[in-house]
Amino acid sequence: MQQHDVVGIGNAIVDIIGRCDDGFLARHDRSKGSMQLVDAAEVAALYAAMGPGVEISGGSVANTMVGVASLGGRAAFIGKTAADQFGQIFRHDIRAAGVTFETPPAGVGSEPTGRSLILVTPDGQRTMNTFLGVSPQLSEAEIDATLISAARIVYLEGYLFDRPEAKAAFRTAARVAVGAGRQVALSLSDSFCVDRHRGAFLAFIRSSVDILIANEAEITALYQVGSFEAALAAARADTKLAALTRSEKGSVILSGASTPISIPAAPVPAVVDTTGAGDLYAAGLLYGISRGLDLGAAGRLGSLAAAHIITQIGARPGVSLAELARAAGLLG
Amino acid sequence: MQQHDVVGIGNAIVDIIGRCDDGFLARHDRSKGSMQLVDAAEVAALYAAMGPGVEISGGSVANTMVGVASLGGRAAFIGKTAADQFGQIFRHDIRAAGVTFETPPAGVGSEPTGRSLILVTPDGQRTMNTFLGVSPQLSEAEIDATLISAARIVYLEGYLFDRPEAKAAFRTAARVAVGAGRQVALSLSDSFCVDRHRGAFLAFIRSSVDILIANEAEITALYQVGSFEAALAAARADTKLAALTRSEKGSVILSGASTPISIPAAPVPAVVDTTGAGDLYAAGLLYGISRGLDLGAAGRLGSLAAAHIITQIGARPGVSLAELARAAGLLG
Repeated sequence: MQQHDVVGIGNAIVDIIGRCDDGFLARHDRSKGSMQLVDAAEVAALYAAMGPGVEISGGSVANTMVGVASLGGRAAFIGKTAADQFGQIFRHDIRAAGVTFETPPAGVGSEPTGRSLILVTPDGQRTMNTFLGVSPQLSEAEIDATLISAARIVYLEGYLFDRPEAKAAFRTAARVAVGAGRQVALSLSDSFCVDRHRGAFLAFIRSSVDILIANEAEITALYQVGSFEAALAAARADTKLAALTRSEKGSVILSGASTPISIPAAPVPAVVDTTGAGDLYAAGLLYGISRGLDLGAAGRLGSLAAAHIITQIGARPGVSLAELARAAGLLG
Repeated sequence: MQQHDVVGIGNAIVDIIGRCDDGFLARHDRSKGSMQLVDAAEVAALYAAMGPGVEISGGSVANTMVGVASLGGRAAFIGKTAADQFGQIFRHDIRAAGVTFETPPAGVGSEPTGRSLILVTPDGQRTMNTFLGVSPQLSEAEIDATLISAARIVYLEGYLFDRPEAKAAFRTAARVAVGAGRQVALSLSDSFCVDRHRGAFLAFIRSSVDILIANEAEITALYQVGSFEAALAAARADTKLAALTRSEKGSVILSGASTPISIPAAPVPAVVDTTGAGDLYAAGLLYGISRGLDLGAAGRLGSLAAAHIITQIGARPGVSLAELARAAGLLG
């Protein structure tokens, strides 16, 4: 079997992206910039209220795997779709992007493929309303141990903790990776997700995680501290390697007792849609680490990929990130 | 019942838009810039071969109706969807854009909602591969006579001639409109479509059409002539009113014996995707005519809407065309 640079495990989601003003978020009680889980009735009501949409495959870790492939890496994804049209879209797009994806769809009559209604405000910020559908019904049997054991890095999505079945699959994947001596990377996904699972995340980070990826809101939520500096100190003591992102302020990479590395954000002419910024930062970072780049170079690849994705609609890059990185002198 | 400015009748289609190079078109035997009908097996094979896509509601006349609504007009659409996820997308998007749409979806187990695989080459040109699915199963009973009788203009899509059921519905709609003294507008849709139905189109134009909309390839195909000038002379003798479009060369509006009106194309900074250019030209023209603007002003609205749509992906405008038109001094 081919060895992959990164194998990702996460929710398989199709994004429905529409524009709205701040008033729409207020009327529908949405917290700007967050990801909120919604049930079937809520997603139907919100969809009926929102404007026209554009459908693009998404899912946080799935986006990251597409980013790794776009940078030239060998990426695989494990996640659950349904035998419906959204599932077809998801399966097509991730494979067409060059990512290995072999998880079979659920049988006819299952819950539908997961979707996220993403509301983009005029400032480019995205607010996500996710109906997970069949996505958490990823069984432990579908965690391909051979695939995981042969990958350099296994990347797990914090969102998987939101449902017990997916959480069990997540733990199985981590156990296989640790057993095979592979690196385990974790995204904290969202600050509300951290609030829901703080204790479990902390225990998992301390026992099994080699690379932690989080943004400022997520890391301060994890340690329940009021400043980024306090979160940084806590993460430095608690993790082997942590990449903490701060939007336009760039990112900081912590590696135990070593001096923290500050990575500037790459310049962005105009922000169109911030969907996928964190996912694509992770793609650059993990691709760089898997290929043995130094942490500063890996972080700069992350900044480049994140800067590109917010100049377009959706979280799947429409151009080759490898070409962008070569043009910027970040890849040879 | 509310009187609509324009009621459109056409295929209800969801576009799947992806990028490809010219070599892909050659390998898959596609004629650049055309619309080719494909069956279920062909659409599946082509989808498997193409790159990642973005899904956006489409359909030629449906796009025009969204354009009319975006300009501030009262628009309605009649077309057939299935009870599937693509149908949900289509129904949501057209209503969310402010277009009246009441045609019920087909029952469970019908053919799927129509889709078009749109391949965009680096020059921005689009090549369409359309699987009509349930779309032609629009019955004559679904042609809402009250809606049509109360509209200023009824706009029909040449593509409807491709299937006998849809053609019957098309003829019923024209009969109702003529009977109610309403204006009948026709889009020739595509030059290959014209080749398939030349005789029927000519007879229909001469008997029932008040406003003919066609591009250069379509009008020369209709009259089987080698130059635009020859087609222009033929159309002038044959139609009450004809708007003939020529991409970056602008358009010419013919009104019987009156001097032809030349409308320049509006400037476009960079062509991203030509999908919908003709549809949005029709939106500006028909909105202008329905509101009593002179033909030159109506044509300039068409040029403006067409120029905007090719700066973005897909054929549904992401901004208010009324605001653009006011900013350009074309609407008060």
